Amino acid sequence: MFEKFRFLTSGESHGECLTAIIEGLPAGLNIDINFINSELKRRQNGYGRGERMKIESDTVKITSGVRFGKTLGSPLTLTIENKDWTSWQKIMNLAADEYNEEKAFYAYRPGHADYAGSIKYNHKDLRNVLERSSARKTAAEVAVGAVAKLLLKHYGITCSSNVLQIGNGKTEEEFHLEIDKARDAGDTLGGKIEVIFNNLPVGLGSYVHWDRALDGRIAQAVMSIPAIKSVSIGDGDLGAEISGRNFHDEIFIENGEIKRKTNHAGGLEGGMTNGEPLVVKAVMKPIPTLKSPLNTVDSQTMTETTSHFERSDTCAVEACAVVAESRIACVLANEIMLKFPSDYIE
Amino acid sequence: MFEKFRFLTSGESHGECLTAIIEGLPAGLNIDINFINSELKRRQNGYGRGERMKIESDTVKITSGVRFGKTLGSPLTLTIENKDWTSWQKIMNLAADEYNEEKAFYAYRPGHADYAGSIKYNHKDLRNVLERSSARKTAAEVAVGAVAKLLLKHYGITCSSNVLQIGNGKTEEEFHLEIDKARDAGDTLGGKIEVIFNNLPVGLGSYVHWDRALDGRIAQAVMSIPAIKSVSIGDGDLGAEISGRNFHDEIFIENGEIKRKTNHAGGLEGGMTNGEPLVVKAVMKPIPTLKSPLNTVDSQTMTETTSHFERSDTCAVEACAVVAESRIACVLANEIMLKFPSDYIE
Amino acid sequence: MFEKFRFLTSGESHGECLTAIIEGLPAGLNIDINFINSELKRRQNGYGRGERMKIESDTVKITSGVRFGKTLGSPLTLTIENKDWTSWQKIMNLAADEYNEEKAFYAYRPGHADYAGSIKYNHKDLRNVLERSSARKTAAEVAVGAVAKLLLKHYGITCSSNVLQIGNGKTEEEFHLEIDKARDAGDTLGGKIEVIFNNLPVGLGSYVHWDRALDGRIAQAVMSIPAIKSVSIGDGDLGAEISGRNFHDEIFIENGEIKRKTNHAGGLEGGMTNGEPLVVKAVMKPIPTLKSPLNTVDSQTMTETTSHFERSDTCAVEACAVVAESRIACVLANEIMLKFPSDYIE
Amino acid sequence: MFEKFRFLTSGESHGECLTAIIEGLPAGLNIDINFINSELKRRQNGYGRGERMKIESDTVKITSGVRFGKTLGSPLTLTIENKDWTSWQKIMNLAADEYNEEKAFYAYRPGHADYAGSIKYNHKDLRNVLERSSARKTAAEVAVGAVAKLLLKHYGITCSSNVLQIGNGKTEEEFHLEIDKARDAGDTLGGKIEVIFNNLPVGLGSYVHWDRALDGRIAQAVMSIPAIKSVSIGDGDLGAEISGRNFHDEIFIENGEIKRKTNHAGGLEGGMTNGEPLVVKAVMKPIPTLKSPLNTVDSQTMTETTSHFERSDTCAVEACAVVAESRIACVLANEIMLKFPSDYIE
Repeated sequence: MFEKFRFLTSGESHGECLTAIIEGLPAGLNIDINFINSELKRRQNGYGRGERMKIESDTVKITSGVRFGKTLGSPLTLTIENKDWTSWQKIMNLAADEYNEEKAFYAYRPGHADYAGSIKYNHKDLRNVLERSSARKTAAEVAVGAVAKLLLKHYGITCSSNVLQIGNGKTEEEFHLEIDKARDAGDTLGGKIEVIFNNLPVGLGSYVHWDRALDGRIAQAVMSIPAIKSVSIGDGDLGAEISGRNFHDEIFIENGEIKRKTNHAGGLEGGMTNGEPLVVKAVMKPIPTLKSPLNTVDSQTMTETTSHFERSDTCAVEACAVVAESRIACVLANEIMLKFPSDYIE
Repeated sequence: MFEKFRFLTSGESHGECLTAIIEGLPAGLNIDINFINSELKRRQNGYGRGERMKIESDTVKITSGVRFGKTLGSPLTLTIENKDWTSWQKIMNLAADEYNEEKAFYAYRPGHADYAGSIKYNHKDLRNVLERSSARKTAAEVAVGAVAKLLLKHYGITCSSNVLQIGNGKTEEEFHLEIDKARDAGDTLGGKIEVIFNNLPVGLGSYVHWDRALDGRIAQAVMSIPAIKSVSIGDGDLGAEISGRNFHDEIFIENGEIKRKTNHAGGLEGGMTNGEPLVVKAVMKPIPTLKSPLNTVDSQTMTETTSHFERSDTCAVEACAVVAESRIACVLANEIMLKFPSDYIE
Repeated sequence: MFEKFRFLTSGESHGECLTAIIEGLPAGLNIDINFINSELKRRQNGYGRGERMKIESDTVKITSGVRFGKTLGSPLTLTIENKDWTSWQKIMNLAADEYNEEKAFYAYRPGHADYAGSIKYNHKDLRNVLERSSARKTAAEVAVGAVAKLLLKHYGITCSSNVLQIGNGKTEEEFHLEIDKARDAGDTLGGKIEVIFNNLPVGLGSYVHWDRALDGRIAQAVMSIPAIKSVSIGDGDLGAEISGRNFHDEIFIENGEIKRKTNHAGGLEGGMTNGEPLVVKAVMKPIPTLKSPLNTVDSQTMTETTSHFERSDTCAVEACAVVAESRIACVLANEIMLKFPSDYIE
Repeated sequence: MFEKFRFLTSGESHGECLTAIIEGLPAGLNIDINFINSELKRRQNGYGRGERMKIESDTVKITSGVRFGKTLGSPLTLTIENKDWTSWQKIMNLAADEYNEEKAFYAYRPGHADYAGSIKYNHKDLRNVLERSSARKTAAEVAVGAVAKLLLKHYGITCSSNVLQIGNGKTEEEFHLEIDKARDAGDTLGGKIEVIFNNLPVGLGSYVHWDRALDGRIAQAVMSIPAIKSVSIGDGDLGAEISGRNFHDEIFIENGEIKRKTNHAGGLEGGMTNGEPLVVKAVMKPIPTLKSPLNTVDSQTMTETTSHFERSDTCAVEACAVVAESRIACVLANEIMLKFPSDYIE
């Protein structure tokens, strides 16, 4: 789905580093590393995060594609080192003759990739699944998304996000109370977020073929974030209750310009941007790693047990909003590059 | 996103025909045209549909890729003729010297592709947007999806769908009342649907790279259906309210087999099928073409007016469920072909 | 490899019709059906063609994507009917209960797809391979290429092709003699062609990632033409003999403009157009269907026999040049659409 | 074109490192780093190479996707450090405030990407083009190809390559004489190579749609190698001179098995492997960087001058053969993964 802004990411949760290569960028784009790092920092913040976030303090290193502060047009390489690599070097060793079972585990963690992943890839030690299925990999995606945002910024496009709900809480004060309560119970919480992009040109995406519809592309990018289980455009989740008369955003004229008074459509009509702010909402399920563990099965003995606990968060909804922003930024950067000539930026 | 099951569709709403080419099918698959036609019929049914559905009675014609009832391995061509073509031949004429403005219109229809589409493609006559952005094109997608279902059937995979809500109605009886009420008011209604696939093998999709996650691919396929504005996997829309302890589907043993007692995850963990039924929910917004029209702007005079009305439905949620089934079937057919050797079927 | 100019083609050699869908075209492009038909005619011409070419006289029908002579931005559907369909309707029947073995054959034709194709797709009747592997399918590609050429023409880009060699003949007169001689011997001939595109902008393609190099994309498009077995850019086939000093095209100034005196590079340096004419050469192998048949094996009896003869040509090099032009035009149309904003043409 | 074996490479010639990410590998594949390094070594060898090859002695580091000697199914990251990075750190600095013009140059080098690349990407300092258009980047491709070869080896598929011609030399002894002569004259040489793959299963590739034909995919992969200007399958370059009777590989039976006595087709019929060895030939043009420089133009003054000389080789045909092997291995690895179920290897 990425015709122009192409990228691959790699890296295990406790491996040496995360890496991303972005291919297709125009030459001449200013790359502000501080901005990328500040985005990585945003991903690590949020009430409810566990200890690992303090260890991490992710920073990016660029090893290709940039010279004297500007992109060259060639692929960009972004690396985020694992600060804790020395403690994990033995466990995550690459060498065949360094095999060991330290930190191996065999009880499927419900809500995680363990069960399906171990069958798909024929893994016995479920750590082989955990290491890549971990949300840790989204750090690389946030770095990629930060580059996408730099491109969008060049076109005046900005973004932000909000947490709309955590547990039954609807305000920041309630979020903290909900999270404290869940943490004390050894439980976890999900939440609902909203991402907004402003100043998008009219006509990104298309209605002519289903795989070019922008709403679909955004939905893929957001739904594939680990833990996201629901995505809506604008007030799409209310589309069953509200009738046509009240749902659709009527069009008016103001000072000779097209004007809407509502934005239920979330800025997308016919799979295209319509000039209104793009509004994407998503629901994150509660983190599946619980301190007070869930019932499950041991894959080796095929007996019932409780699930493996690896240091985790109580709630990561704020981080998830940053990832969603980043993913959508990648989709939009691609669309912008399809719309405008994009070999270089002056 | 379709590595194996590739297709393109074409056709205007009032053009001569809709066409689809499917490339990548295995040889030896039984093609039951009656089944494809029955799927087309399902798309035309449903309480709340307008007059056009009666005219259409879509049937498919296959002109390549099949011989003596079985696929050849070569591309399949599916054509659905427009039964009303003679009345539209002049209006939709291909010849440059047959230009005429009959049926041209200029007032943007809110909720449709008209505004963004006319800017994107530089169309003055908004019919040039309407004709392809119409939901009519989903008939070709249902035909393609029917072929995908025939492939899935070979692997024992079945599907069904339900309407969960229309307006404020939650039962079939209430649906009819809601629709009648809306029709009488010149208004329209959306609704909420659920699509279920059974007997999927464990491990379709993947967690290793975001664009291979099955939840994301399904979300793209469903969200890009015209009028769909919200997509959830399983009980994903409730992920903010329910805590981790209650959301995640614990794992048990029954007769030596892995067993779940709940399926909040909707059959997907870590972006992969986990052996439970795949459950996808989606919300369709109300149809944007209202008999009692919405306020809008005339693109030529740039003055306020009311929107163009073209014969339409009051509610098309049942049809939408069939389209969603079809789209998801395409995604799954592709995944099945990636998993199993797929040059031919014995 | 086609980010913008996407297409699929379909159709069996003796099926009802060939079809192509092109997706991604800008709106507003003039579609001249006479030009498409003249291209189809060019493909059927050439000294050495057999009887079928006289039956065919291909013409295209467009059933979507065009209105009043201009593209709508929606997918274009092109259909070429098989004029001889009534004679083949029984043999190529779609219905399972119409199975018959008339025209079935089982002896692999050397040089054709029969052997590998029958194993890949599990076909017993080799007609199931022949029908799609036939060069007949290139008619649809020529129609698609004609549309690509119309797009290129809008940007002032033109093309032509020449036959450089047939057998040992190097001039048109010698071509005819060579072909006559081969026909009389029940033999066939290949040849060498050259395709030239003029007025391409500088910088199509790229050196930054191997799959964006234009020379590679052109090579794929040309080498995958049935019977083409060798592709060169410019004087590339002489690159071993000529030293660097004599091979590379030095750069001069003339009237303040960059000027080359030679074009050994064939207009491509670093995988990009360099402002000189694009020159692509290709070698077509001799047609593998010989009147005086080759030794082979019967797939059912696994005994030695001679190969099946289906009405064929002695030499189709001129047709092949038209197909090569068409394929390259598709590649270039895609590149042009990546370079210039391409939602519509004014 | 890579549905399964996906990869991106990055890195400037004198940047900190080259990087590649490979996505889509099965789990359980043995990764032998020594083999990858030996392939990198092969690329650096060959009579006629300059000084840089001695500095380089490339070795690969893997930072993801492998644990205890086997692939995890997650993306593999390969890094090749630039041993000379400290000398180039200032020149290739990423920081905007470290701008300097040391090693900048402005005279287009004929035969290189300089002219087209500087226009495409709006670069003034042609080093910005040189750094990525350099053949240095093929080291990363050889590392990727080595992984592809490890996958192919699992299926019993092996490969080798030969230099067929350098200048007018046809034997190794003559190659050395030709190279010595060219070096003394400040000139450079190209050559002709041959790559052979054995034990490929029948039916890789396809005839059903042009972009799935294996000959086309191979041609793209080989023609996009910097300096390759001509690609042939088998004896394809002789297809004009040899008649059908003598070109096509007749089929016989030997001990109940299909047997060919010739392989003019180079193992590909109808765009598919036919069980015979795959033979690909390619012509490399002479290296365009000459010690005794070519005439050219200075892009800043627009006056005639001679071209920039950067330390270079006289002949790199042997290295080119290794790159061609690597690229074709990637194409074949992808096809193998499409043919066989490929989530894991036992």
